[in-house]
Amino acid sequence: MTMSKEFEDQLKELQARVNKLESGTKDQLSMVVFSGNLDKILAAMIIATGAAAYDMKVKLFFTFWATAALRDPKKKGKGKNFMEKMFGMMLPKGTGKVKLSNMNMCGMGTSMIKSIMKKHKVASLEEMFKTAAEIGVEINICEMSMNLMGFKKEEMIDYPNMTVCGVATFLSDAQESKVQLFI
Amino acid sequence: MTMSKEFEDQLKELQARVNKLESGTKDQLSMVVFSGNLDKILAAMIIATGAAAYDMKVKLFFTFWATAALRDPKKKGKGKNFMEKMFGMMLPKGTGKVKLSNMNMCGMGTSMIKSIMKKHKVASLEEMFKTAAEIGVEINICEMSMNLMGFKKEEMIDYPNMTVCGVATFLSDAQESKVQLFI
Amino acid sequence: MTMSKEFEDQLKELQARVNKLESGTKDQLSMVVFSGNLDKILAAMIIATGAAAYDMKVKLFFTFWATAALRDPKKKGKGKNFMEKMFGMMLPKGTGKVKLSNMNMCGMGTSMIKSIMKKHKVASLEEMFKTAAEIGVEINICEMSMNLMGFKKEEMIDYPNMTVCGVATFLSDAQESKVQLFI
Repeated sequence: MTMSKEFEDQLKELQARVNKLESGTKDQLSMVVFSGNLDKILAAMIIATGAAAYDMKVKLFFTFWATAALRDPKKKGKGKNFMEKMFGMMLPKGTGKVKLSNMNMCGMGTSMIKSIMKKHKVASLEEMFKTAAEIGVEINICEMSMNLMGFKKEEMIDYPNMTVCGVATFLSDAQESKVQLFI
Repeated sequence: MTMSKEFEDQLKELQARVNKLESGTKDQLSMVVFSGNLDKILAAMIIATGAAAYDMKVKLFFTFWATAALRDPKKKGKGKNFMEKMFGMMLPKGTGKVKLSNMNMCGMGTSMIKSIMKKHKVASLEEMFKTAAEIGVEINICEMSMNLMGFKKEEMIDYPNMTVCGVATFLSDAQESKVQLFI
Repeated sequence: MTMSKEFEDQLKELQARVNKLESGTKDQLSMVVFSGNLDKILAAMIIATGAAAYDMKVKLFFTFWATAALRDPKKKGKGKNFMEKMFGMMLPKGTGKVKLSNMNMCGMGTSMIKSIMKKHKVASLEEMFKTAAEIGVEINICEMSMNLMGFKKEEMIDYPNMTVCGVATFLSDAQESKVQLFI
């Protein structure tokens, strides 16, 4: 009888520990998207949509230069000061404007890649964001980056699962994820 | 008796869950090698060969610019169209041609680093690929990148564990790996 | 009685496996800091100090270009040869000298970002290293990078938890960590 009680306690303790281990390894992918270049955002979105298609939960954290690519070219942020307006003008507005990190050659490399992607029926960045939205990829935008670059929530693309938040959100997502990447 | 049965069931259920947890945390390293720069490929190969030397299973996924570095300068791909030939010429062919991401200074920085590496007896990129092959590092090449850049399997370096595959392979490897990196 | 013994053995075996699983998933963050650019080191330090603030153990591995940023502009390394002196001069000396990876525009972008960071009360890189030291972030510097660039331990910033070590240290830290990133 005491033997059984002892077993029971040990079993319960072990179950609690396995619960904890399981909660820390969700079938989840957390990615910091830092770069504002076409090729890197493309790589991030291919991995993200691929993972979501294989039933992983996907959480992206857009920060620094990548934030600029999330702006909708048809929208405008209000109440910007001089510095914020300048920054806004200097950075590529939206996925249609981002350039290659390499071999850009004044835009020639970028258009070449885009035309080759079309020929090979690889989805464009715009189409990938649409797919990502449909299959539930979550996009978090770094609040500090928004503040530093003077971007407003109202000038961002329409995206169902988009939140502005801090680095703490990324860290807590990353801790729960099986896979983490910084792109 | 019923008590024992109950214990047994709980124990079995717990064993199954621990089995699953273990299968998701292999002593394995998955790395996306995206960059085509000498310094970054060098870093990737140092980490890869280091990990393999410490008995980790290592799986590299070469994509985008990094794919160009895997071409053998002595080999040629057949049946390329104009665009593919142009791309092939513009990108560095093989590990001997890749440049630094920083301080390249028209190749001067790159040769400086190479000569300093030699002096300090740090293996060259070519030697590192040889070592990697010997200790079983697996190289996967991104099929989409091969298609986009018009590279053919026949122009790649001789490497025993080299496969052309899709992003799904990387994702399934990464999910099983303890460590994942994007370089 | 034999039944109990069998349970006990199975329970012990399971406990051992759970112990092993737990040891491989510490609340720990391992980061390779490779880039020598202001924005990327900034991102690395924001993630590092954030994680440490949320009680994660944080271990940074500074390698290649990032190593240059750890030099103290007021200190000097002794006994350098010609090549080492040249390298030392060409690379930015310390956190105050590193530049943006993007939109640097001869330093204008870099000063703009710094002035905006000040306005928004975002800590400077210098302040972040101070905070990191206070909350116990460990900094490991890649020995091979130090040798290649000819940097000496005596010219590095004062930092309580700073060690010069090899890639093996990073790999063993990374294997134990829940989150790993390459920046």
